[in-house]
Amino acid sequence: MDKKNFDIVRLHHAEVTVTDLDRAREFYVNGLGFFVTESDENHLYLRAIEDANHHCLVLTKGEQASLKHIAYRVSADEDLDALDELFTTLGVKKRWVAPNEEKGQGRALKIRDPGGIPVEFFYEMDKAERMLQNYHLQGNSKIKRIDHANCLITNIDDLYAWYSEHLGFKTSEYTVNGYGEEENIWAAWMHRKPSVHDLALISDKGPRFHHIGFWMDDAKSILDACDHLAALGYYANIERSPGRHGTSNAFFVYLRDPDGNRLELYTGDYFTNDPDWEPVKWHLDHPQRATFWGALPPDSWKKEAVPVEDIFTGELLPIHTIRRYEKI
Amino acid sequence: MDKKNFDIVRLHHAEVTVTDLDRAREFYVNGLGFFVTESDENHLYLRAIEDANHHCLVLTKGEQASLKHIAYRVSADEDLDALDELFTTLGVKKRWVAPNEEKGQGRALKIRDPGGIPVEFFYEMDKAERMLQNYHLQGNSKIKRIDHANCLITNIDDLYAWYSEHLGFKTSEYTVNGYGEEENIWAAWMHRKPSVHDLALISDKGPRFHHIGFWMDDAKSILDACDHLAALGYYANIERSPGRHGTSNAFFVYLRDPDGNRLELYTGDYFTNDPDWEPVKWHLDHPQRATFWGALPPDSWKKEAVPVEDIFTGELLPIHTIRRYEKI
Amino acid sequence: MDKKNFDIVRLHHAEVTVTDLDRAREFYVNGLGFFVTESDENHLYLRAIEDANHHCLVLTKGEQASLKHIAYRVSADEDLDALDELFTTLGVKKRWVAPNEEKGQGRALKIRDPGGIPVEFFYEMDKAERMLQNYHLQGNSKIKRIDHANCLITNIDDLYAWYSEHLGFKTSEYTVNGYGEEENIWAAWMHRKPSVHDLALISDKGPRFHHIGFWMDDAKSILDACDHLAALGYYANIERSPGRHGTSNAFFVYLRDPDGNRLELYTGDYFTNDPDWEPVKWHLDHPQRATFWGALPPDSWKKEAVPVEDIFTGELLPIHTIRRYEKI
Amino acid sequence: MDKKNFDIVRLHHAEVTVTDLDRAREFYVNGLGFFVTESDENHLYLRAIEDANHHCLVLTKGEQASLKHIAYRVSADEDLDALDELFTTLGVKKRWVAPNEEKGQGRALKIRDPGGIPVEFFYEMDKAERMLQNYHLQGNSKIKRIDHANCLITNIDDLYAWYSEHLGFKTSEYTVNGYGEEENIWAAWMHRKPSVHDLALISDKGPRFHHIGFWMDDAKSILDACDHLAALGYYANIERSPGRHGTSNAFFVYLRDPDGNRLELYTGDYFTNDPDWEPVKWHLDHPQRATFWGALPPDSWKKEAVPVEDIFTGELLPIHTIRRYEKI
Repeated sequence: MDKKNFDIVRLHHAEVTVTDLDRAREFYVNGLGFFVTESDENHLYLRAIEDANHHCLVLTKGEQASLKHIAYRVSADEDLDALDELFTTLGVKKRWVAPNEEKGQGRALKIRDPGGIPVEFFYEMDKAERMLQNYHLQGNSKIKRIDHANCLITNIDDLYAWYSEHLGFKTSEYTVNGYGEEENIWAAWMHRKPSVHDLALISDKGPRFHHIGFWMDDAKSILDACDHLAALGYYANIERSPGRHGTSNAFFVYLRDPDGNRLELYTGDYFTNDPDWEPVKWHLDHPQRATFWGALPPDSWKKEAVPVEDIFTGELLPIHTIRRYEKI
Repeated sequence: MDKKNFDIVRLHHAEVTVTDLDRAREFYVNGLGFFVTESDENHLYLRAIEDANHHCLVLTKGEQASLKHIAYRVSADEDLDALDELFTTLGVKKRWVAPNEEKGQGRALKIRDPGGIPVEFFYEMDKAERMLQNYHLQGNSKIKRIDHANCLITNIDDLYAWYSEHLGFKTSEYTVNGYGEEENIWAAWMHRKPSVHDLALISDKGPRFHHIGFWMDDAKSILDACDHLAALGYYANIERSPGRHGTSNAFFVYLRDPDGNRLELYTGDYFTNDPDWEPVKWHLDHPQRATFWGALPPDSWKKEAVPVEDIFTGELLPIHTIRRYEKI
Repeated sequence: MDKKNFDIVRLHHAEVTVTDLDRAREFYVNGLGFFVTESDENHLYLRAIEDANHHCLVLTKGEQASLKHIAYRVSADEDLDALDELFTTLGVKKRWVAPNEEKGQGRALKIRDPGGIPVEFFYEMDKAERMLQNYHLQGNSKIKRIDHANCLITNIDDLYAWYSEHLGFKTSEYTVNGYGEEENIWAAWMHRKPSVHDLALISDKGPRFHHIGFWMDDAKSILDACDHLAALGYYANIERSPGRHGTSNAFFVYLRDPDGNRLELYTGDYFTNDPDWEPVKWHLDHPQRATFWGALPPDSWKKEAVPVEDIFTGELLPIHTIRRYEKI
Repeated sequence: MDKKNFDIVRLHHAEVTVTDLDRAREFYVNGLGFFVTESDENHLYLRAIEDANHHCLVLTKGEQASLKHIAYRVSADEDLDALDELFTTLGVKKRWVAPNEEKGQGRALKIRDPGGIPVEFFYEMDKAERMLQNYHLQGNSKIKRIDHANCLITNIDDLYAWYSEHLGFKTSEYTVNGYGEEENIWAAWMHRKPSVHDLALISDKGPRFHHIGFWMDDAKSILDACDHLAALGYYANIERSPGRHGTSNAFFVYLRDPDGNRLELYTGDYFTNDPDWEPVKWHLDHPQRATFWGALPPDSWKKEAVPVEDIFTGELLPIHTIRRYEKI
């Protein structure tokens, strides 16, 4: 891989739409233990236990559940210019976001990636108090940091190549469909930080947003969060019971917020940055691929996902079907 | 409650039928970490990590999955005579089991309880090496001891009264169906040892055997067992994903052995022996009753259970339906 | 063992002296997560997560750290009369405690046991809300219930026999000192509930109170409590690092409250009520007896303990030395 | 920080001396669960559960416990030439290691860093089977990967600057001694991978090697390893009880191998690669710096460390004292 003149550090935050901010605050703050850095009439800026910056999650009031954008942090301000130049060359739709247009954040470059996903790149963000060793101020749901985003798109071959070649993403694991000459990529777990992923791309009706994954320290912390959520009355928001994925080796639970945006509480991946890393290959038919053990997911988990927004108009992008075998 | 002239200590072991002993050994010993105390052509006598006696589980070769019996231990040999007398008075079908007819065990009294469940009472059993602090000899599935049996029966009113009044079982939690004057008992968690249960009785087609519950120290141990089983290829034997029950507050996972006998790996209950204990009452309609959080169980878990054997002939007892609302 | 005409259920609560109730509330409620059922100028009545009664711990204002009493619950009110009669016969110092003299509690019988320990027996106590499934109201220190008391006494032979013969305590594990004909009992773990212990007796300068043990569900919960306490500034109150005992197999951490009363957070014991249980025997010289793994305890843990009170005068009983080899 | 023409990925392996390979195999393989990739008369090449390469730890037969070298992996073969050039410029003592001189490894560049530590850089290593999802082949000690090395050196100012400026290491946390104008760096936690550290440098008599840290998934896994080791008889090898560090926030236990080489089982750090990361500053006097909670470490942990080898002669480097306040 040739050296880039920019460096994408990691997936840093996401912005999703909620229809009722009070109800959302109840879920995300009381239920999931996020800390509110700032809020206004239309937004909640949330951070997790490890975060030393303004937010890792923005909830924005709107008409229905949707992904407004995901954001990657770069390692230097000039990386944004290098990316801008690259996207001009590639003909990618983009716009600059002014400093503080997203509160607490410096200038940012927003694009619609070739799969339709609204993606932002930024360097600067206000600092905020890190709660890591303030154990006494942490609740029963101990989310440490954002980990990854999982998107459903209709053009995985193109998008996989695009992230690999142009943005320097590496692949930790991937799934193929078909056999022999018919074999083609069905999904890819791609990363910039040396974990399993910052971004998962899956072939399905799209563009849609399947979930944001948040890191917890261990399986017990994930179970504790379930107990806490259930006792608060959010039992039906626990969409998929805890289990282990084959792909990524993650221990997970999946939640839906009151509007239907999906979250994963996630732990258990591994170091992926050795230079001779060979991506783990799964076949779509492998029975332990998605569910290493335990019962299969409910239909909602396989079929439901939220739309994504147009970075210019804020309207929801139309969702296209694909001919390929669809199956999460 | 009047004082009995016998003392039932706890559920001590169970005997189930398997069709292939080698395959069963693979699952129970390699997969679940049971220790083989003794075996012969038709039996495997297994014990768990805490056990200081010959067995807590007997696998017996036969035609199909079934429950051959569950056994309670009493605190003195003469308790068996007191029980024999009681059962004569009550007109319960019974027979004496000679010492060593069940290997390693002294004389025992076997009955068909009024719900049809084959139940044994015994006092004496050979000692065996306890593995509790032999951590180095324990595998990845660390089952500590047997905890309870869960049976489906058609006459809960009678059976609940029978275990309460005649055998001195107490109730930790129970479920009712219907409202007001229509309310009736649908299920009961009953115990002799001061835990949530030695015996769960549930109204459903019966008599059938739903599962045996085995105790593990904590949730992490249950997850470790899942990883180990799945890596051995037993992923499809993990019937219901880990979760928490409302009733009993247990953290669980449910497994099926290769023949379909069901096991629960269980942790997390509480002390139930205070004299003013008020049984926890659940309504069948309470959404957190069976599943405190997480996705609902698969249909198989709700609908499938194995038959039980006649204590005289070894034949399978016929299964009766009931008119009551059936729902686990 | 002959049948008694009374039944001691379990160690149910303890009362210790603290010199500053506000400071103690900070530690026990904010730090350890106890729930305050009631309080007055001189007392805090606390309960743990599982408790359905008024208190499992009473903090009483006084001059210095000390044990005021430990209390066992009996299974019927008339058991108290049977015990009264027994203690009269045995010449044990005793007095009746009027209903509500200890708030929320019915009549009780208080004795000085032959080792000097102030012990109470009671049957009735007011109910209180059980917090078991109110996970959202639980803090980071999740104490489930009281488990045992650990006392240092100078006459173990007598006291061990006394609890065994007269009160029906069983022994799960014990430690001997000396070899061959010189062998004698140095410590005993005794129980009424079928766990490792309600009461540990250890030969040392006495009578003194070493600690109360509280049950937590698992090791992770104990570590979470340490993080929470340390973040609150109570790091120096964590006297002995987490570890495992050989005797009892417990996973533990030891704390000192701001006055020096010692608490153990405890998990991991086993079922002890099988009728052929053979007490586990340890020799005082066994290197894994007290510390199954990990570094040895600090001197304070071995040498410090608080005095106990006279049940009549409330004065502290004098502390006697013994000739026997002293070593925890 | 200016861009380097090489990229150091992470600490990748270490080589330590043991005096008895059979005894060491017993400890590292049976006790700690390392997998043997290859062995010969004088070496054991070990890998951990996550490793997809030949080794993360080499045990080499010799006269006494010592560090032979630690090794960093670079992201391209030509990085080695760039480093060679850099070291020439800097006047660093170095030598090339031929391919397979260290089994399974390509060419490597070995240096004596300015603190005296023997350090190797390499790119290529043979692949080996990764055991991550072979849960059934993993034992009770589940070491996932190597995490960091901890070295005692006498010239921290120089060495800290050297790793920062010349090799591109970043600092996650550091400790200062003295106040105001007297303040100086006492220790630094430095990283290439985005974790707390690949390398910890501490001011003390040196050069000496304090420990290698290995990553485990969670605290429970560390406790399980302790149980397993203790049951095998290695209780005295558990030098320091489990606890949490202030610096790094790690949950740890410290072990000594049969020769005295020290290992840390480690979990719980955090993401450190955000471009505005501000190193966490601790003062040497902060009571929660080294021990966030729990008892203080034993003297051996503070005072003992093993010597390091000369990269040319294999002889042990002399150990120098420093005038600065010495305290771990």
